[in-house]
Order: sequence, then C-alpha cells, then structure tokens
Amino acid sequence: MIIDRLIAKIKETQNPTVVGLDPRLSYIPDFIKKAAFEEFGKTPQGAAEAFFQYNKEIIDAVYDIIPSVKPQIAMYEQYGAAGMECFIKTCAYAKEKGLVVIGDIKRGDIATTAEAYSNGHIGKPDIDGEKNQIYQQDFITVNPYLGWDSIEPYIRDCKEYEKGLFVLVKTSNPNSGQLQDLDVGGMTLYEKVGDLTEQWGQALMGENGYSSIGAVVGATHPAQAKALRVRMPHTFFLVPGYGAQGGTAEDLAVCFDAQGLGAIVNSSRGIIAAHQNEKYKNMFAEKDFAQAARQAVIHMRDDLNRVRR
Amino acid sequence: MIIDRLIAKIKETQNPTVVGLDPRLSYIPDFIKKAAFEEFGKTPQGAAEAFFQYNKEIIDAVYDIIPSVKPQIAMYEQYGAAGMECFIKTCAYAKEKGLVVIGDIKRGDIATTAEAYSNGHIGKPDIDGEKNQIYQQDFITVNPYLGWDSIEPYIRDCKEYEKGLFVLVKTSNPNSGQLQDLDVGGMTLYEKVGDLTEQWGQALMGENGYSSIGAVVGATHPAQAKALRVRMPHTFFLVPGYGAQGGTAEDLAVCFDAQGLGAIVNSSRGIIAAHQNEKYKNMFAEKDFAQAARQAVIHMRDDLNRVRR
Repeated sequence: MIIDRLIAKIKETQNPTVVGLDPRLSYIPDFIKKAAFEEFGKTPQGAAEAFFQYNKEIIDAVYDIIPSVKPQIAMYEQYGAAGMECFIKTCAYAKEKGLVVIGDIKRGDIATTAEAYSNGHIGKPDIDGEKNQIYQQDFITVNPYLGWDSIEPYIRDCKEYEKGLFVLVKTSNPNSGQLQDLDVGGMTLYEKVGDLTEQWGQALMGENGYSSIGAVVGATHPAQAKALRVRMPHTFFLVPGYGAQGGTAEDLAVCFDAQGLGAIVNSSRGIIAAHQNEKYKNMFAEKDFAQAARQAVIHMRDDLNRVRR
Repeated sequence: MIIDRLIAKIKETQNPTVVGLDPRLSYIPDFIKKAAFEEFGKTPQGAAEAFFQYNKEIIDAVYDIIPSVKPQIAMYEQYGAAGMECFIKTCAYAKEKGLVVIGDIKRGDIATTAEAYSNGHIGKPDIDGEKNQIYQQDFITVNPYLGWDSIEPYIRDCKEYEKGLFVLVKTSNPNSGQLQDLDVGGMTLYEKVGDLTEQWGQALMGENGYSSIGAVVGATHPAQAKALRVRMPHTFFLVPGYGAQGGTAEDLAVCFDAQGLGAIVNSSRGIIAAHQNEKYKNMFAEKDFAQAARQAVIHMRDDLNRVRR
C-alpha cells in the first residue's frame, strides 16, 4: 500500500514535511531563466525549461531529508502542453529519487470523465492494446462535490496500481467556510465529507492503521482539524497552509496522532522560494537557492518535530 | 460580453445544442486510428493525432448549425502533453470556425492557484514581459467547493479578456445529491451555490438579461432544474445529461425561459459517436461518421426546439 510507503519514508527521514513544487517565474533565479529563454525564447517552452531546471536542483538538494513532494499542476498547466510535459518530468524525476509524489490536481467530475482522469493520472491508458505509463504520481488530490460515483473510479485504480488519494475535506483558504462550514443537519459539510472519506478509505487500509485514501485538512483551522483527527482515525491528513498561508506548527500539532504520525505538512513558497525570504537571503547567494531550500526544510522539520509526538 | 455572443449564435442557428467533444479511441473509425498510429505509433501522440483528425471532421460537419462546442479536458489530459496540445488545437480550430468554445475543465483551488489556472485557461500568461495566448477557451467550468476566493480570480480575468464561467451547481451524475442535495438550513447546498452564482454573476451582466457567469444544471433532475430557473433569473444554464445520460427534451424544457433562451444543452456521445448508434449506423458508412454527427445534431436541435418556445 502506498500509504505504508509514505509512512516508512516519514519514519526514515524523521520528517513529515512535503515540499510543494509550485514554481513561479518570479521565484526562479535569473541565470536559470536566462539560459532557458536563450534556448527556447520567452515562450511556454522557455518557462517550462526554467521550471524543470529549478525543480531539479531543489529535488537534488532536499530528496534525502523529506518523504514527499507535491507539485501543484496549475502552475504547469497554465503553460499548456510544454507545462504539462514539465509537470510529468518533475514527477518522474522526484520518483527516481525515491520520493512519494503527490499530484495536487484537485480533479472532480462525473464517473465516465473521472475514469479518464484516473486512467491518465494514476492508471495506464490503453492505446489500441498497448498500456502507456504517462503520468508519474503516487497520490492525487480530488474534489468531492459530485459525490461517490465521481470518486469510485479513482479508488478502483488505486487498488490496481497501488496509488492513493487525498480528498478535499477542509481547505486552507480564507473563504473555505462559505460552503464547507455550512450545517448539514447536526454536522458541517466538511465533517460530512470527512465521514464519507473515512468510510471510502476502508477499501484501502494499509498495515499502519491508515488508509491510502487520505484527506486535505488545512493548517489554518486548528479547532476544526483537532475534531477531524478524532473523527477520522484511519485517514491520513495532507495539511496545507503552514508558513506563507499563516498556519503555525502549534496550529497543526492536533493533526498528528499519539505516535506523531497521521499527517504530512506541505510548504511551497516557504521552501522553494526561501532564497528570496529575508531570513535566508543574506545566508545564500542566488545560485545557491537550492541550499536555501534545504535549510528551510531543516528548519521546518525541526519546527514540526517540536510539536509532534 | 461573451454571453451575448453565445446568445446571438443560438438565435442565428436556432439551436441551443452544444456538441461535447469528448473523444475516445473506441469511437474513432479505424481508418483514422490506423493513419495516426502508423505515423506516431500506439503512443499518446498517436492517440492525440487520431483525436484531432476526428474532432476536425466533426467540427467541419456541424459548425454552421450549432452555437458552441464543449471539449472535456479529461479525455485529452489523460494522454499527457500530447493530449493537452490536441485539446488546445481542438479549441483553436473550433474558434476559427466561429464557435463559442466551452472548456469543461471543472477546476477549483485556493486563490493563488486559481490565478494560475485562470491565467492559463482564460488569461494571457506573462513570460518575462511577453504575453502568451496559450489556451483558446471562451468559457470554462469551475467547481465551487472552496468558496468565493477560489472563484474571484477567474471573474477578474473574465472582465479583462471577455470570457465567461459555468459554475457547477447541480451536476447530472447519479450521486450528485450525496452532497449537493443536503439541507443547509432551509435550502439545499446546490440552491445555496445557485444563489451565490446568481450573486457573483452581477459583476458580468450582458445586454440580454443574462450574466457571463452561468451555471451547470443537469438535465437529469427536472424538478430541481425548474426551481433553479426561477431562483436564478440572470444565470444561463449549461445543461449536461441529455441523451446518453438519460435526460429528455421534456425533462430539460424547464431550463429555458419564456423566450426559449436561458440554456444550452450538451450532448457528447450521442452526437460524436452517432455513427455507432443503432439509429444511424445503417444510414452512414464509417467514413461518413461526421455526417452521422450532423444528422444527430439536426435531430437534437429539432427535439429541443419542440419543447422550447
């Protein structure tokens, strides 16, 4: 089960930190952009090449001290086919380095369409009798608004290909409560989705008490996360919102279980753009941006380990 | 306003039919697949080439009698970068033919990520000072689960680039009610999302009483659609579920207003795979699959016009 591999990696690195590979051109050092634009012009290909070189250096600098990376597909998809190629190459490179790859794709559609998403992202598309491995993700994130039949196709592929999901339960953004916090009869909508996720997860239980069907639970809502941890004992949490979005280690401590497991915590900008942060800017030259990222990972790891037990 | 252009096209063609360009290899005639696989192998490139040739013939055969096409991105995305290139080429070709292009992408994410999706799909990504037009969609579909700050970035780009949205309100799939029909205090969740969509739409009102912010409302739920039509008087409906999914013209008649406007109705398989349907199979040779699609459009148009005033 992929959830057991994730847990083993967290124990091995003593680190529940996920590095969000969400590149933006504004984060990338000029020398990388210059080389990419000289080769491909100020085009989607140029942007994608800059992203890949940047991601590669960061992965090289941190892969031995983290369990997982989470590329956000939107950052790549905005540059069309060239961007998608970079997304796939980034995932493949991270996998080569032994990392668990979480594709943050937040897809959600009716069953026949979900089958296509699932087939591509976590399955193996059959092209006239030949199976093609196209994407390279271990987990993907999915949106629950369409209900069970929109989730079920992914679960089938998770079983067949040893993959996992993180279902959006309570997101980290300021307006997440507009729908998610509505009372749906004695509980909130996100609690209802949490209950369903816990139930769906029974189909993919691993050896460590957790399912390969996890949940996205934002670090920006500590009281709600605490209640969800109790409510969803077999569901691993992917926790966004640490750092740049305002969540602290203290806020998200409630997401861990008594063994210090049960959650991984994502940081994107705080790590991959550490070289632009006041805290690290004077310690690292621009060309050493990946070492700044490594330092930021170490600080985040220590910060999280302070509160998890 | 893009909604006014859509309405003008509906009036001009006297047809509220949207052709869902959701190709599958199983729909595509052997002669097209053979040529594509000979050139590119049984690879994602081969599949994408077959999709494009198939889509192109269908667009050529129907563009003069329909207002709009709706490519479902999942069908393309499953084939990676080559698939995405085909999605973009398909949208561009449909636009060249004067069609309104609705990208069925159902994206939904936190604000900074929504900005990236919006930038790519309906904006113009700035690459080191140069604006690139990458995707070619007029409208896109979006998922509301994350609330207002996840929608707002798209609305900004809709204003700047004359684009539109269709927000998922009540979807056509069998389990859509699992969350969408929950009572959130005197109304259902989908009614709440409907009210929000109507309200968000005030920012983009066109000249015909409708906003460029529309709603997805499934044809498979007639009573609910009827109530939504009253509840959302300025919101245009994109209605999936006709035909293969079980919705009839009678079911969705309630989606039209007194002028016979207010809705467009999608059919995918029923049109693009008409040549495989019992009804048309004996009338058209395989090579004339696009003429079968045209005939299916004419039947659908007449069927819809029977029920709309």
